[in-house]
Amino acid sequence: MKKSSEANKRIEEVGKRILNDIRSGRFPELRLPDRSVNNIIYSPELKQYVLGERSIARSARNINQIRAFTQLVWLGYFAKQLLNEGKTSTLRDVYYSAQAFNIDFKDQPESDEIITELESLLNMPREDFNIYPEERSAIFGDLEVRYNVKGYEGRTLNLTSHPDGVMIGPALTTADFVRTSADKLIVVEKGALFTRFIEERVHERFKAVLISTTGQAPRSTRYLIRRLNRELGLPVYIFTDADPWGMHIAMVIISGSANAAHIRELTTPDAIWAGVWATDIKRYRLPSDPLDEVDIKRLHELKDDPRYTESLWKVEIDEFLRRKRKSEQEAFAKYGLTYIVEKYLPEKLREVG
Amino acid sequence: MKKSSEANKRIEEVGKRILNDIRSGRFPELRLPDRSVNNIIYSPELKQYVLGERSIARSARNINQIRAFTQLVWLGYFAKQLLNEGKTSTLRDVYYSAQAFNIDFKDQPESDEIITELESLLNMPREDFNIYPEERSAIFGDLEVRYNVKGYEGRTLNLTSHPDGVMIGPALTTADFVRTSADKLIVVEKGALFTRFIEERVHERFKAVLISTTGQAPRSTRYLIRRLNRELGLPVYIFTDADPWGMHIAMVIISGSANAAHIRELTTPDAIWAGVWATDIKRYRLPSDPLDEVDIKRLHELKDDPRYTESLWKVEIDEFLRRKRKSEQEAFAKYGLTYIVEKYLPEKLREVG
Repeated sequence: MKKSSEANKRIEEVGKRILNDIRSGRFPELRLPDRSVNNIIYSPELKQYVLGERSIARSARNINQIRAFTQLVWLGYFAKQLLNEGKTSTLRDVYYSAQAFNIDFKDQPESDEIITELESLLNMPREDFNIYPEERSAIFGDLEVRYNVKGYEGRTLNLTSHPDGVMIGPALTTADFVRTSADKLIVVEKGALFTRFIEERVHERFKAVLISTTGQAPRSTRYLIRRLNRELGLPVYIFTDADPWGMHIAMVIISGSANAAHIRELTTPDAIWAGVWATDIKRYRLPSDPLDEVDIKRLHELKDDPRYTESLWKVEIDEFLRRKRKSEQEAFAKYGLTYIVEKYLPEKLREVG
Repeated sequence: MKKSSEANKRIEEVGKRILNDIRSGRFPELRLPDRSVNNIIYSPELKQYVLGERSIARSARNINQIRAFTQLVWLGYFAKQLLNEGKTSTLRDVYYSAQAFNIDFKDQPESDEIITELESLLNMPREDFNIYPEERSAIFGDLEVRYNVKGYEGRTLNLTSHPDGVMIGPALTTADFVRTSADKLIVVEKGALFTRFIEERVHERFKAVLISTTGQAPRSTRYLIRRLNRELGLPVYIFTDADPWGMHIAMVIISGSANAAHIRELTTPDAIWAGVWATDIKRYRLPSDPLDEVDIKRLHELKDDPRYTESLWKVEIDEFLRRKRKSEQEAFAKYGLTYIVEKYLPEKLREVG
């Protein structure tokens, strides 16, 4: 509940500032970090995009800003309601909910933008004020959690209880970590590999908590990965397909996205992309497919991306561009279904660990 | 384990037939139902597409068939291995695994086709021989299950244990149902609504097991819905977005897809599409968007589809085409986040129940 009471406090502070302005006969005004492209800077120390020093004003005095000002104030009110009632919501819910209050958003992108403004005003991710993504990843492993959501306060669960894995939603994201025997977190891109790892008891043999992102990791999954890394000290190893999209799934977990430059709580800078690398395709003689044109275009974009300057990434991008081949995680099944667990995984963990 | 031992038995029978042929000096031959378009018929009694009487031969005598014959025999061998070792696999795994045996598939569609042939030869869905979809839905509710998968034999779990829901994978699909207090199954298209329903305790207030399909229901989810309906006698109510795609998500749960005409175990003919209907848009004054051209094209296709002949579907298709509007499940948030649970859901259950 720590997070939600902190969010509550910050929303109240904003409210009090506005109220003070009004009581003092001033037009209320809020200052927000400027999120325009010119103010987004890559920080090599933090390994993520951050915002520069510039800020912008949202004032009730300015006729051009009063609409966005009102929307922002309403959203603060709505988020506070969510927190007080222990309810969660999504970007889309917020868009429709506004209509109940005669708050006018012309479309969902407009309400999404205001949610991002509230994040940057409060300096916390929207999950902290109970607005969650629609997508869900899954988790499995010897980790006992204690829930904080309404109706489950104090109840615990060991995350090996369900051998298909459990969903990462609001309840897990806000749960306390009670106990684990794991000494690492392994994140995989594909649900099929997640199931294989559970069947082959990777959680026991490698003392690992397992997460399946199912493609690009949703924000609340990145948030949970960061918590597992920070609070339990678990090193994080990410396994994706060997293609530019898999690489970038790993990178976004490590360094976040430029869209989230205004918050720092969705990255895990120590996480390691452990494979499947471009160089693994040759090394393990994996079945592979030719890169498509979009793959090659994407690789050239990544080459210019400041997040991709470390040597691991450069080497692998160059290897992709040289051989023009990609492989999937499932390609290891060429050597039998268990090869990836018996051979590849221990070799890789030794190599990067 | 019932299902997997049945699959084992049927695979062995096929093997024995082949062996007998060879021992008797005959070229082995298998007969498969013909799955070509001309042999796919809609059965109004079963409310699903089925195959007609025609069959085709796969013979080792015919040089044109020997490749597919060999692939099919290998797949039977591979499936039997999976069953014996208690491992599961996916369509993609099978494609790559074949390479370990020097079985040549030119691409994944070719191996997918052979998997479908084995389904029709054994007359059982591939989940019964441990080949599962990659996608996963989620489930939540007062249902106690007993697992049959390796390492979990005999262990039980109540599916309210994790308030974000648990994944529907191989373990749950093959679990026994021990006990439930639920008297219905509510299936929703959107993960956000699933979370809302859990938060609002729909499972207690409406005595319901909840499933989130997250879009089109994966096959193993449809399989589980059927089991919950048949084995526990739970009536099934499906809630989707009010658009042709949502309608069809419901229809595929009820009547299956033409692609699966060769098996009968993925349908729930008694399931009911309970909303959001086209007529609900006006009735509940929901926020709505204009239909796109693809939506309208799709509606005309559905009009000609023999699965859509009952009056409910016809009325709703006509209403869509008349008003040319669609709505999402989240649109009810216009009346507050709990309206859909407090008002809409009970009204609908009364109406269709």
